Amino acid sequence: MAQGPIDFWFTIGSIYTYLAVMRLPDVSRQTGIAFRWRPFSIRTLMIEMDNRPMKVPAKLAYMWRDMARRAQAQGFPYRDRPPYPLQNLDLANRVALVGSEEGWCEAYTRAAYLRWFTRHEEPGSAGADTASLREIGQDTQRVLARADSDEVKQRYEAATGEARALGIFGVPTFAVGPELFWGDDRLDDAIAWYREA
Amino acid sequence: MAQGPIDFWFTIGSIYTYLAVMRLPDVSRQTGIAFRWRPFSIRTLMIEMDNRPMKVPAKLAYMWRDMARRAQAQGFPYRDRPPYPLQNLDLANRVALVGSEEGWCEAYTRAAYLRWFTRHEEPGSAGADTASLREIGQDTQRVLARADSDEVKQRYEAATGEARALGIFGVPTFAVGPELFWGDDRLDDAIAWYREA
Repeated sequence: MAQGPIDFWFTIGSIYTYLAVMRLPDVSRQTGIAFRWRPFSIRTLMIEMDNRPMKVPAKLAYMWRDMARRAQAQGFPYRDRPPYPLQNLDLANRVALVGSEEGWCEAYTRAAYLRWFTRHEEPGSAGADTASLREIGQDTQRVLARADSDEVKQRYEAATGEARALGIFGVPTFAVGPELFWGDDRLDDAIAWYREA
Repeated sequence: MAQGPIDFWFTIGSIYTYLAVMRLPDVSRQTGIAFRWRPFSIRTLMIEMDNRPMKVPAKLAYMWRDMARRAQAQGFPYRDRPPYPLQNLDLANRVALVGSEEGWCEAYTRAAYLRWFTRHEEPGSAGADTASLREIGQDTQRVLARADSDEVKQRYEAATGEARALGIFGVPTFAVGPELFWGDDRLDDAIAWYREA
């Protein structure tokens, strides 16, 4: 039976999403499975649910430590803890949404994460976004104007609503139809599920 | 250099701890690594930290679903969602603590989890504990009297204090010296770290 892609729900600004962003293109090539990149605002949903793991200092400290260990083990660049949380999370993700419509979402998200995690420049800040967009050959002024348009803001809200309806409560989440797999560390489970479907 | 065991910090009553309890004996045999079973009260620490992932309905529903999928994939028995949270969590874990001093912690914890997850009988309830202890050849009356003694209550509090000092915020946690690995899904990472140490 023909199957669609696996939906990769993410928000630029999430810690562990870095690992998924860095390995997903290779995983896709190796498995032949397509992933549809779906930026939205997990922050909105987490506030609604009063789901605030980051408010627990021991847990937040652990997450950065664990992320650093896993990045090193997988050979992804990492330079101690970057600025967190992001100041302009929504703008960064609306830029990614524009990219998902124009075919450069993956490239922007990867560039934005690398700049954030290795240079400590925040996605959604003017300097970082200008550099990331230039790096991938996009016109910053045009893209930022689109990202700030009511049309894109509405689509960003609609994507967040879709994630809410699916029962998403954290990112990254891989969705195989209605079946959710939360966390970069559940990517293998999602792929196994997809293959059995 | 000679190394001690990996500390396996857990609380009977945690969802994912089931997976670790079921596979740890085999993992230990296969790797030659000893695990020291350390029951304590994660509930106490989570309340102190206001760390309440289980208060998020979408997250809790997901955790049971994910646990069921993983139990099935690994061949561990599971029959839909058991009673949760446990009413007498502390008693069950003080029984496990007595077991850790007398050499049957693993056996009791495994029996208690299996009874909970397959028969829906709660660890810490009189009927379930009597059956689990009988199953592993222990005298219920003697064990429960010890588990209720001030001496064991103090050691339970001390173990919880030790976990707090290590920075533990969830279970299961594997500790390789000061290095923490949180979650059944981080067991491989803990083992890799232990081997490199």
